[in-house]
Amino acid sequence: MLDEARRLAPRFAARAADTDRDGTFPVDDFADLRNAGFFGLMVPARLGGAGAGFAEYAEVAYELARGNGATALVFNMHASVTGALSGVTDELAEALGLPADALAARDQHLKAAAGGSWYAVAMSERGAGSRLSRLTTTYEPVDGGYRIRGAKTFCSGAGHADAYLIAARSAGDPSQVSQFLVPAGDGLRVEPTWDALGMRATSSHDLHVDVTVPAAALLGGVEGLALAVAQLAPHWMVASYAAVYVGVARAAVDAAVEHVLARSLTGLPAVRARIGRADAAVAAAHLVVREAARRVDEAPGDAETNRWVWRAKLLAGSTASEVASSMLEAAGTSAMRRGHPLERLYRDARAGSLQPATSDVCADWLGVDALGGDPDTDGVAPRW
Amino acid sequence: MLDEARRLAPRFAARAADTDRDGTFPVDDFADLRNAGFFGLMVPARLGGAGAGFAEYAEVAYELARGNGATALVFNMHASVTGALSGVTDELAEALGLPADALAARDQHLKAAAGGSWYAVAMSERGAGSRLSRLTTTYEPVDGGYRIRGAKTFCSGAGHADAYLIAARSAGDPSQVSQFLVPAGDGLRVEPTWDALGMRATSSHDLHVDVTVPAAALLGGVEGLALAVAQLAPHWMVASYAAVYVGVARAAVDAAVEHVLARSLTGLPAVRARIGRADAAVAAAHLVVREAARRVDEAPGDAETNRWVWRAKLLAGSTASEVASSMLEAAGTSAMRRGHPLERLYRDARAGSLQPATSDVCADWLGVDALGGDPDTDGVAPRW
Amino acid sequence: MLDEARRLAPRFAARAADTDRDGTFPVDDFADLRNAGFFGLMVPARLGGAGAGFAEYAEVAYELARGNGATALVFNMHASVTGALSGVTDELAEALGLPADALAARDQHLKAAAGGSWYAVAMSERGAGSRLSRLTTTYEPVDGGYRIRGAKTFCSGAGHADAYLIAARSAGDPSQVSQFLVPAGDGLRVEPTWDALGMRATSSHDLHVDVTVPAAALLGGVEGLALAVAQLAPHWMVASYAAVYVGVARAAVDAAVEHVLARSLTGLPAVRARIGRADAAVAAAHLVVREAARRVDEAPGDAETNRWVWRAKLLAGSTASEVASSMLEAAGTSAMRRGHPLERLYRDARAGSLQPATSDVCADWLGVDALGGDPDTDGVAPRW
Amino acid sequence: MLDEARRLAPRFAARAADTDRDGTFPVDDFADLRNAGFFGLMVPARLGGAGAGFAEYAEVAYELARGNGATALVFNMHASVTGALSGVTDELAEALGLPADALAARDQHLKAAAGGSWYAVAMSERGAGSRLSRLTTTYEPVDGGYRIRGAKTFCSGAGHADAYLIAARSAGDPSQVSQFLVPAGDGLRVEPTWDALGMRATSSHDLHVDVTVPAAALLGGVEGLALAVAQLAPHWMVASYAAVYVGVARAAVDAAVEHVLARSLTGLPAVRARIGRADAAVAAAHLVVREAARRVDEAPGDAETNRWVWRAKLLAGSTASEVASSMLEAAGTSAMRRGHPLERLYRDARAGSLQPATSDVCADWLGVDALGGDPDTDGVAPRW
Repeated sequence: MLDEARRLAPRFAARAADTDRDGTFPVDDFADLRNAGFFGLMVPARLGGAGAGFAEYAEVAYELARGNGATALVFNMHASVTGALSGVTDELAEALGLPADALAARDQHLKAAAGGSWYAVAMSERGAGSRLSRLTTTYEPVDGGYRIRGAKTFCSGAGHADAYLIAARSAGDPSQVSQFLVPAGDGLRVEPTWDALGMRATSSHDLHVDVTVPAAALLGGVEGLALAVAQLAPHWMVASYAAVYVGVARAAVDAAVEHVLARSLTGLPAVRARIGRADAAVAAAHLVVREAARRVDEAPGDAETNRWVWRAKLLAGSTASEVASSMLEAAGTSAMRRGHPLERLYRDARAGSLQPATSDVCADWLGVDALGGDPDTDGVAPRW
Repeated sequence: MLDEARRLAPRFAARAADTDRDGTFPVDDFADLRNAGFFGLMVPARLGGAGAGFAEYAEVAYELARGNGATALVFNMHASVTGALSGVTDELAEALGLPADALAARDQHLKAAAGGSWYAVAMSERGAGSRLSRLTTTYEPVDGGYRIRGAKTFCSGAGHADAYLIAARSAGDPSQVSQFLVPAGDGLRVEPTWDALGMRATSSHDLHVDVTVPAAALLGGVEGLALAVAQLAPHWMVASYAAVYVGVARAAVDAAVEHVLARSLTGLPAVRARIGRADAAVAAAHLVVREAARRVDEAPGDAETNRWVWRAKLLAGSTASEVASSMLEAAGTSAMRRGHPLERLYRDARAGSLQPATSDVCADWLGVDALGGDPDTDGVAPRW
Repeated sequence: MLDEARRLAPRFAARAADTDRDGTFPVDDFADLRNAGFFGLMVPARLGGAGAGFAEYAEVAYELARGNGATALVFNMHASVTGALSGVTDELAEALGLPADALAARDQHLKAAAGGSWYAVAMSERGAGSRLSRLTTTYEPVDGGYRIRGAKTFCSGAGHADAYLIAARSAGDPSQVSQFLVPAGDGLRVEPTWDALGMRATSSHDLHVDVTVPAAALLGGVEGLALAVAQLAPHWMVASYAAVYVGVARAAVDAAVEHVLARSLTGLPAVRARIGRADAAVAAAHLVVREAARRVDEAPGDAETNRWVWRAKLLAGSTASEVASSMLEAAGTSAMRRGHPLERLYRDARAGSLQPATSDVCADWLGVDALGGDPDTDGVAPRW
Repeated sequence: MLDEARRLAPRFAARAADTDRDGTFPVDDFADLRNAGFFGLMVPARLGGAGAGFAEYAEVAYELARGNGATALVFNMHASVTGALSGVTDELAEALGLPADALAARDQHLKAAAGGSWYAVAMSERGAGSRLSRLTTTYEPVDGGYRIRGAKTFCSGAGHADAYLIAARSAGDPSQVSQFLVPAGDGLRVEPTWDALGMRATSSHDLHVDVTVPAAALLGGVEGLALAVAQLAPHWMVASYAAVYVGVARAAVDAAVEHVLARSLTGLPAVRARIGRADAAVAAAHLVVREAARRVDEAPGDAETNRWVWRAKLLAGSTASEVASSMLEAAGTSAMRRGHPLERLYRDARAGSLQPATSDVCADWLGVDALGGDPDTDGVAPRW
């Protein structure tokens, strides 16, 4: 899949200027991903997928992002859903006491992905961010299923996904937060609010929800699992897009090199120093993302794994922003024209540190942890 | 005029999102500037102007830029032309041996400015940048004047100015570079090429020139003065827009403060630290711009003055870029939405270091100078 | 006095390596200062002094620090005492209801300074830092005066000053903190604890106090004035040494230039860029210190004045540290040898950000202030 | 050996303050290293050593440096000599046409190391730095061997090593530069010139050479091999001490954590943020050093390997310096007292970027390389 990702990246890059300018969804990129089987990347082989682990995902995301960060970011959401579903193994399901129906539903969702369906995530809400504890979208039991009502924001891929992972709170028991996989269609209305500085092609619009779903849509088959799953797989919430931003940073170095060569500016010492330092910074951030991903596969949720996840998020975000800014400065004013890769990458790269957990939050958590505290209770609250 | 600038800034700010988004010229801002008499800012009182010096200009530019950096940047070009014209005093003209006609033309241009006309600058060319020594636009004598032919780029305000300062090389004697003030109209064709990362409302389009002008259009009345004027007034070429970028940086701090207050994020230590450090950095850059401007008035072209001019350019550019980036990070993802001031300011601010002389060039010049060398001969060549 | 300071600086510089290496007091520098009349710098003319304001002090401190930062730092303590005393004008004294005796004592202390005496400050204590509210040194009334007992730390010039400003808490009423000017001699014992990374020649040793002083030693003649005075003159507590660190930073640039010229390294682009950027940063910090000092003279204690004081402290400290580090890197390994000015300056410069109020504290205060809060109550507590 | 290194590190740390203060050699650390068999680390098992590769060396160096960077730095020189000797395998020797005698000598040197001897490197000279092409130390053939004469500088471990690797130029044919392993004793005179900012315990004194050695002392048995060996093993010249500086940086984080915990400063957000960011930076630099070391073992001298070597050198040096400075700022003034680990680490850490190839040189090489140039011919010359 890695070779395939490398093959697709230049195609994505060639389309990136248009979707960025217009803020339209990279429909062709996603067709390429479907055709190449990427939607099954995280699906176990027994269900028709590639059975990739987190480390393999991270490498794929890095390569895709070298083509178009926005495409990679939307794909990350699908990978999160399928990766988390795959992570609920039969053993874990038994330990959690999940009903047999839930396993069948899980397999059905994953098979569909392997067959070419892809999923978006509708978690964040205005005011609540992505903090599960503050969600106001509710669900209540109805005949044969649940009715879900509320409004979501920052839903990447809205209007294009085949189904949406929607987090909602029980109207009857507000302490219960559950997740549903809701097919696109009636009851989900996209409000095209996404018009942002960077990552413009992600179509991260608002999603208005008033929909009734069958019982099988409740993930896990038991209410109230959302927090447990989040704690089991924090890497999918905190750092899965770290790889994307390192890819964006590398794309900025590549674009600067191409620009400088085309303009015969290789003799400028300041340009060389900028490119040299950027290259080293990106290489370092890439290794940190790899190490974090490797540990997620080996020991997900461990204290040391989480440390690497925070380091990866922190360094990917800050490196992307600093590198893209310096590469634009190395290339000069002509690279500021719209349509130039560096013009887009400079905007795309800035988003990394701001996505939760932000760089400042990660730095605080790492500091609290190094000082023997517990980031969950002693650290600054994330702006999710 | 400073109070007036402060009064206009919020009006400019209210319009900035629209012109930025569409890349349209801030027509209403320029109507405001005309009505308030700003086009005569640099015109001597005897010709109906405000008779401001460089220091007063710099303060005005800073205040205007707090409203809209793009507007301030275009105004800077007009100020450069009128400021440089005003700088050619009768005494200087005599010393240079300029003909009396030239003085009358100078006064006429300045009176027109005081009366509400404004001028753009058409200097840069693709491939040559703003290096006078590499210009390919030519002029040749014709009956009663000159015919000028060529193509210019980065002409801020193209299509809106009343006249354009055009630099061209003598077709007969390529060693002669002269400047003409050419009225808008036939012979000047705007090609709308400006579509850039930041400062989008400057309409810095390409200008195609094939025009015949009367002899009086030749500034100074003598051919070959362009380089001499550039050397007499390097501040107008290097640092007059430094004040603009400090204004942009201050606007970013202000926007972040407003955002953080509205979101009740004042309790976050990382946000406070970012704002505190940004405030100090902007205050420092502002002082440097003021000091440079003060010295330009006192001793234009002096070695120590030039040093301050380079420092101002260097610090204004780097401070604007770093501050805007940090303020966006302080404000968080919601400030990335288009139409949010910080989204625009982040893009506008990046242009500062890239405009000639770039930050890297200024750093080199300062280093060469500190080491006893001559930046003109020992320093890295500017990418003009 | 400024010219005189410039004359002395090279003499100080020539001695700096020895006192730094051995951690001995710059006795000869202080003899020079005495002979040139610097101890009367802040003393009103009517009492035989130079009657300098804070701005003049700041310029003098900057110049002295270009010679030896440690000497300038000790001198700063004397200037603080005499400056604060001079700041208690007759009008202010009347407004505060100070007894006539106190004015006579004030004049006597200032006259002595103009005559060649100099004062150190013994404020900080282990555990309490320089926070007046946590001092444990106490005083109690005895026949004809007070008995003061306790232990002080970080007392610059200990063992060399003619008298010490000692802050102590009333044993009878712990809410009262007062300040005494205690002559050197019996009852004051210096414990040579100062052996630090930088500013090694300040002899900032511990001072053990068990001394009985006459009533006239109580500054102001009334108990409990220490906090009031601190609030009236925060600049002497927060930022008077900002000028010192900018001088240290400038000395580092100068030393790097000299080294690079001697080694014929002027052709290295990275060296030139480092020196150019350092020059600009030091020039900016210098202007901020000047602006803060100017405002202290005009409107001491005003909100805007305090803002500039914090900016000055923040930028002086961080600039000194970053510049000295970069200049050492520009000069190369041979500048790491002990006795090389850059080797000392790198260590001296690091102290600036750490002295109260630290850079981090100043950043927080500026942020709180920009967000409309009150740094005194909403800001992080200084580590004084 | 890694466990052993971790066991020794705290012992080294406990002694580091004394040897740093006095600038004395860490004799006890080296006795520990001898007793634990570290001198045979790079010696093949068949000759009684541990047969470690470069990656294992790098991990050991990192751990030793967490105890005392100076000790690790001297040990690095011994590892360089033994590592380079071990790198001349029988196959390589045959390919190079080395005489059989040379192999026997190689084995003898390595056996001696495994038996407890250790070697220093005497390469640099004043004026020439470590550039082989500029050395002025000469050798000439004499009966039964060679006479070597000259003066070396920066010879770490001078006066303590059992033998010295000395580079010299043929008096007869200046194009030939050869290396000799010269036993301590008559003919080698140490001039105690080393008295530096940091890494004070390395005893990197001058070495005056006027010695006659037997023919077997000529490494490789053939004249003129020095450059070839340098090209075969650039990692030993450029980056073997990168691991040392990452260890120093980690030690600074550890010392700051300990200090902050002891002072109960864990509640300060700025302190936490500093420690968190430092932790991430050190973790990243460590991974880069590991990756470089891994590639050196797999494909020494390859273009991609060299890239990682430069990245490792660049990031180790800059990270160490920045982290140590920030950790000192996190800890506060009390950590500036001599004897406090952070006081020493701040000085030790600064040396990393300055050792050849400097950070600025590595940045240039990486930039030239990324732009398709050849750092050897197009890059800035190292200040060796």
